[in-house]
This record gives sequence, C-alpha cells and structure tokens, in this order.
Amino acid sequence: MKGAIMEQSIELFANKGFKETSIQDIMDVLNVTKGTFYYYYKSKEEVLMDIQYQYINRLLDSQEKIIHDEETSYQEKLHEIIFKLLNDIEKEGLRAKVFFREMRHLTNEHLNQIMEKRDQFKENIQLVVEEGIKKGEFRSDLPPNIVTFGILGMANWSYFWFKPEGPIPDVEVAKIFYKMLLEGIEKKE
Amino acid sequence: MKGAIMEQSIELFANKGFKETSIQDIMDVLNVTKGTFYYYYKSKEEVLMDIQYQYINRLLDSQEKIIHDEETSYQEKLHEIIFKLLNDIEKEGLRAKVFFREMRHLTNEHLNQIMEKRDQFKENIQLVVEEGIKKGEFRSDLPPNIVTFGILGMANWSYFWFKPEGPIPDVEVAKIFYKMLLEGIEKKE
Repeated sequence: MKGAIMEQSIELFANKGFKETSIQDIMDVLNVTKGTFYYYYKSKEEVLMDIQYQYINRLLDSQEKIIHDEETSYQEKLHEIIFKLLNDIEKEGLRAKVFFREMRHLTNEHLNQIMEKRDQFKENIQLVVEEGIKKGEFRSDLPPNIVTFGILGMANWSYFWFKPEGPIPDVEVAKIFYKMLLEGIEKKE
Repeated sequence: MKGAIMEQSIELFANKGFKETSIQDIMDVLNVTKGTFYYYYKSKEEVLMDIQYQYINRLLDSQEKIIHDEETSYQEKLHEIIFKLLNDIEKEGLRAKVFFREMRHLTNEHLNQIMEKRDQFKENIQLVVEEGIKKGEFRSDLPPNIVTFGILGMANWSYFWFKPEGPIPDVEVAKIFYKMLLEGIEKKE
C-alpha cells in the first residue's frame, strides 16, 4: 500500500501540482479511507519527501556505480553520467518533474537533506572532471567547479525540453552533448 | 504607481512566492488602498504577466542587438549571448527568479504568449549556431537544434547556482563556458 500511495501521489503531484493535491485526492484514486493514508504517512509532505528521497538516491547509486567502474576512462564515465540523466528523464519523467518542481514545498529540514544529496551528485561529477584532469584526459586550464556546473546545466536542462517521444532518442542526445563537451563546437581547420 | 506596484510585487513574489502573496500584502508595503491597485491591475496574475513580459522582452531586445551587430563574428555573438544571460542573473536576480519559478501561475493564454517569446529566444541562439556553421565558424556535424539546447542549458542553469557575490564574476563564468563550448574540455596532445 505504501508503494501504491507513492505511485499515485507522483501522478497527482506531477499533473495537478503538490499544493493543489489533497490527501483526499490521493485516497479517492486508491479507493481507500484517510485512515489508511495516516497509517503509512503523517502528512502529504512526508509523501513528497519519500518521492524526492527515492529519486535522488537512485540517481546517486547509479552515478556511483559509473564512477567506481575500474574498466572505464574518465571520459567514458562523463558520457555515461550524461546518458544516465537523460535516460532518467525518459524513464522516470513524472518523478523527475515532481523532483525539480515541488522541491520547494519540502520542510526546511527535509529540503536540507535533499540539497545535501544534490550537492553530492554535483561533487561526484566534479570528481570525474578532476580525476580526468590528473590522468590527462581533460584540459587543466579551466576551473573544474565551473566546468561541472556547465555539464550539469546542459544535462539537467533537458528536463525542460527533452521529450521521450521526440525525434532524437536519449542515447543520441547524450552522444551529441558528450561530443560538444569533449571536442567543442568550433570548426577545426 | 504602476512601476512601484511591479517592483514591490517582484520582491514579494521572489521572497514569499506568487501563491503566498496577497494583493493586500502588496498594498501594505506600498501603504495604499486596494482601490489604487485595481485602478492599475485587474488581478495579481496580471501583475505577474507584466513582470514576465518585461523580463523576456528585455532579454530578447538585447539578444537581437547582439545578433544584428555586423561587426562581430558568430563566435563572438555566442559569447555575448552567454554573458548576457549570466549578467542578467547578476543584475536582475529577483526578476529572473520570479520569471523561472512563477511562470506556471500564468493563465494559459498568458503562458502561451511567454512561451512563444521563450521559443524565440531559443530560435535566436539556433540562428547564431546555424549561421556560424554556414560561415565555417562552427562544426557542421552536430545538429544545431540539440547544440542550442546544450548552450541554453549551460547558461540558464546558472540561475540555480550562480551567486553574484560568489568568487567568480559573471564575465569570468561566461568566458569559461564559452571556452568549454568552443574548444571542448578534452586535453589536446
């Protein structure tokens, strides 16, 4: 039941908005009483926290697998992280929507926990950039911090425009972004 | 008075949120009656529309000046557009915040008008990319559409992290992003 409450809440929060969704709305879709809801959750905000928490934890887990893969170069890790973000929008569109859009409705305490994890996600990309510089895979004359924000922006912004049903699939967009980032868009002589 | 209503509303919408701000709140700060408000605006949403409209129109105007400058190359135009976006966050932080965050509270009709202008902003960057490809300034083997989303993402995402009071000023961040985009981050032999 807890899983069902979460799934239905994701749908409702994504389509109607968190503020505009009542606990009654969630219960109506599930066809159960409020008592059932309060058995699992103290509040609507607690459901939102669960959604946010699960979303960012899954992203962090898969990111850490990519980073600690000893078979791949840092360039490949960067490519995989970009792909993972796009693939996630493709596969987990509603969750991504709720994550980005409804974050500000968390309590301060919960928001801080999520922000820490978001920072960790960014730190992990920066680690790939820094290690890649050490290994001579990336140039060393640009500050890794700002480069990382550039990478993150490129990939995260796709949440606002990338449509899984569009003409270019996630794997292609990731490849184009990777080439832009690695090689640049300047025409070489 | 109309200007003052707008300025105060920007502050309130940015700090408290659009939904959480009442017309009474706006009037309290200005120390005038509701009648004054309704003389200039039909609703709170109409104020929001004015804010959104002014923000995107200014951005479009300055973007079009950059594009139609006959003295600059397409590479330089790209650099200037990126700088303009960062500079705008530096100078117009509260407006940018209200623009990005409260857009969804517009009526459908108003939202469509703003979306058209946002699309125009994107189309203008794409034009720079396409013309730059024709002139041999940018590589021709990546789709301009996706490249443009990459540029836009990199620049727009800075709204979420760039702090005017931070250690690296807007002009420096713009230069780093421009170098990343043009030359890529791969280490050249």
